[in-house]
Amino acid sequence: MGQNLILNMNDKGFTVCAYNRTTSKVDDFMAHEAKDTNIVGAHSIEEFVAKLKRPRKMIILVKAGPAVDAFIDQLTPHLEKGDIIIDGGNSHYPDSIRRTKALEEKGLLFVGAGVSGGEEGARHGPSIMPGGSEAAWPHLKEILQKTAAQSDGEACCEWVGGTGSGHYVKMVHNGIEYGDMQLICEAYDILKRGLGMSATEIADVFEKWNKGVLDSFLIEITRDILRFNDVDGKPLVEKIMDSAGQKGTGRWTAIDALDLGQPLTLIGEAVFARCLSAMRDERGRASKVLAGPTPKFNGDKQQFIDDLEQALYASKIISYSQGFLMMNAASEANNWTLAYDKIALMWRGGCIIRSVFLKDITSAYRKNPKLENLLFDDFFNKAIHDAQDGWRRVVAQAILMGIPTPAFSTALAFYDGYRTEHLPAGLLQAQRDLFGAHTFRLLPGTGGEKYKEDVDNHADWRGTTGRVSASTYST
Amino acid sequence: MGQNLILNMNDKGFTVCAYNRTTSKVDDFMAHEAKDTNIVGAHSIEEFVAKLKRPRKMIILVKAGPAVDAFIDQLTPHLEKGDIIIDGGNSHYPDSIRRTKALEEKGLLFVGAGVSGGEEGARHGPSIMPGGSEAAWPHLKEILQKTAAQSDGEACCEWVGGTGSGHYVKMVHNGIEYGDMQLICEAYDILKRGLGMSATEIADVFEKWNKGVLDSFLIEITRDILRFNDVDGKPLVEKIMDSAGQKGTGRWTAIDALDLGQPLTLIGEAVFARCLSAMRDERGRASKVLAGPTPKFNGDKQQFIDDLEQALYASKIISYSQGFLMMNAASEANNWTLAYDKIALMWRGGCIIRSVFLKDITSAYRKNPKLENLLFDDFFNKAIHDAQDGWRRVVAQAILMGIPTPAFSTALAFYDGYRTEHLPAGLLQAQRDLFGAHTFRLLPGTGGEKYKEDVDNHADWRGTTGRVSASTYST
Repeated sequence: MGQNLILNMNDKGFTVCAYNRTTSKVDDFMAHEAKDTNIVGAHSIEEFVAKLKRPRKMIILVKAGPAVDAFIDQLTPHLEKGDIIIDGGNSHYPDSIRRTKALEEKGLLFVGAGVSGGEEGARHGPSIMPGGSEAAWPHLKEILQKTAAQSDGEACCEWVGGTGSGHYVKMVHNGIEYGDMQLICEAYDILKRGLGMSATEIADVFEKWNKGVLDSFLIEITRDILRFNDVDGKPLVEKIMDSAGQKGTGRWTAIDALDLGQPLTLIGEAVFARCLSAMRDERGRASKVLAGPTPKFNGDKQQFIDDLEQALYASKIISYSQGFLMMNAASEANNWTLAYDKIALMWRGGCIIRSVFLKDITSAYRKNPKLENLLFDDFFNKAIHDAQDGWRRVVAQAILMGIPTPAFSTALAFYDGYRTEHLPAGLLQAQRDLFGAHTFRLLPGTGGEKYKEDVDNHADWRGTTGRVSASTYST
Repeated sequence: MGQNLILNMNDKGFTVCAYNRTTSKVDDFMAHEAKDTNIVGAHSIEEFVAKLKRPRKMIILVKAGPAVDAFIDQLTPHLEKGDIIIDGGNSHYPDSIRRTKALEEKGLLFVGAGVSGGEEGARHGPSIMPGGSEAAWPHLKEILQKTAAQSDGEACCEWVGGTGSGHYVKMVHNGIEYGDMQLICEAYDILKRGLGMSATEIADVFEKWNKGVLDSFLIEITRDILRFNDVDGKPLVEKIMDSAGQKGTGRWTAIDALDLGQPLTLIGEAVFARCLSAMRDERGRASKVLAGPTPKFNGDKQQFIDDLEQALYASKIISYSQGFLMMNAASEANNWTLAYDKIALMWRGGCIIRSVFLKDITSAYRKNPKLENLLFDDFFNKAIHDAQDGWRRVVAQAILMGIPTPAFSTALAFYDGYRTEHLPAGLLQAQRDLFGAHTFRLLPGTGGEKYKEDVDNHADWRGTTGRVSASTYST
């Protein structure tokens, strides 16, 4: 990715110096991809630093974790006040917060920049999400915005906010990517096992979807993957081991949601679905002893495929709603004042989740920067209402066919829970009061002689409570 | 809880010394509950320590966190080699690991003991899950096992294992408790809104369920809660605010599952459901602008209620299967060699999740201590097969009625995913290879000329890949 980003910056008219601790890689790069460009190579940290104009702007692209700290430690003795270090890897945002603080104390500036787009994005324009030392931004703005993808004439790179925010937004981006990919997998599974369609037939469905509301990079590549055959003429995708890894940013996103108390159910299920996929041998044994219905669909196939498109669309709306809710909670917790229209803009091009859909999100937040939830925006409100009948039919049908749809299902459960004024959690509070004297509050307008509003009530549910309370017992 | 535990130990013939830093509480306790017992009071740490026989056995019951460390720091200067500190609170297990290490270095013994049962359990016999310094167990066994609940003549207290394991098992217990409570709430919501039943009618359903496979403390108290009326004659439960807290052990359990890569979906959804319940004002606003189907059920009501019982039972089997899978992963990661029959036994009485069901789990693990998954045990295998048709009907119906069932749904998705030999994750791996050059493996028996088994393959999916790889980009 580093090499591609350098080539990209060179194309945009910037002079870039490339350094790698394995100096043969630098030589190889200079002799091939970087030949006949303005790119300069360096064989040592000293040489690298000496070749940069001040304030130095250095972007590190190494594996997240100790390698980032090690590189920073190597660099800092050679730097001068005002020099800028950018971490363009997938660092965990608390590390970026720590690094900004440590480097600012030394008079240096630090920017944690999420970069998304994979190989191609880095080469031709990725999504770049920088946050950290704000004084660095005027020095970086032109370079990063020109290097980034452009969407309808706007750069997919904007200043995200204070320390940690760039990598935070990238983390949520990756979580959403987990969710989008899981939703596509569920749709594929329904078409394959539920409707018994071939990879080519399914590719045609994705091709059609890519011309409608689902138009996006991930739908597009799914179409291409489904059409890609091995040399024996069979679809390669059907030969690939169904075991996905999940250590990384998706997991961080789910954990952060739990820490913030935010119901990020779709990404949570997407991460757990990867965990389950990784239990391949155990699933093989389970498949022998756990039976279910035989997938068989007797209805109108085209209607069902159209319903499925709506199910995918509606679930995606829920996933992004949850992601933006979570970023809002994080923004408050960290004093970031995130601008959601800019975040949607940054994700609109260059990155893995780029889509037409994100343009509608940009519009929604531009219309109302204080929008409480995407579902309250007119466009998305109409979209989810239009989609919901088909969505319900798909999930119910998948359940009756025995095809797992954890992400579709949880999205629908969230929609139904979110629009429910009175959830059954009152019973849960009663249970907690009964067994743990945890007390409960009353709904507005229900207070009476014995139990009051706006105070902690305790009931003697079974006439067994003594004088003692259970303040230290907490579940 | 501390006072009740002391009274309980006193009843069992042990002499207990009570201390609280607020000495008036000690005096109050001695003058009331502890009057005419063998309980001794102490007004200072020095007095407390002086009154104990050696090796001293001290159980701390304070709020988890810094208060535990503060109490330990106050105690240790007065202790002698071999003295035993037991933390009976809801401490996070990494803290217990740290404390065991620190105290063992001082020649002291430390036991982290999960205690469950709330007020009543502490008074009449809780579930106690001790783990930590193994040398402490011979000194504690009689006291703790006599103090604990008894189930069919067996004490609901056994040595769990090495450092941290006691609080770990208690954490998972609490996570399972979150799951059980959420499942009950979903059943209640379906009966109330879906079938339009009154609290009294629903109480009768729970009363009946409490005589069958669901026989448990939580079903029993739900029955009682539903029959409990406010002084105006209306069910109190319907007046309680539907906003539940989730900071604590349930959240820790879900986070730990993510860290271990274990698909603990049901508890995850239960925690998220509490998060959603806490967004009460926002839900109120959402309920005005987000429509759904009108809950209406036209089928055979009694059949549906019977299906619901099966749905609850099957979902519960999945939740416990997931919990035991996770404990197995934790046991391996921490070298605990947990004994699952003993864990099920400890949960069988005294604690919040106590149930007849746990007896069947004990039996399953006694029959086969190496059981890979509860679903592979004959009893549970038959149970889930018998339940699944009704379970599917209930979830599909709830979806069509617009009633959220996140826990029922995720349990069913897990069942269907777990029993699927080939999940669609192969597509996901292809996507990752296409956009990030992450490579993929092949299924056994599918290797050919170009793509091979047991190696990392990369395909040029769209004929665009250059020489560069993307080893640093990892999602």
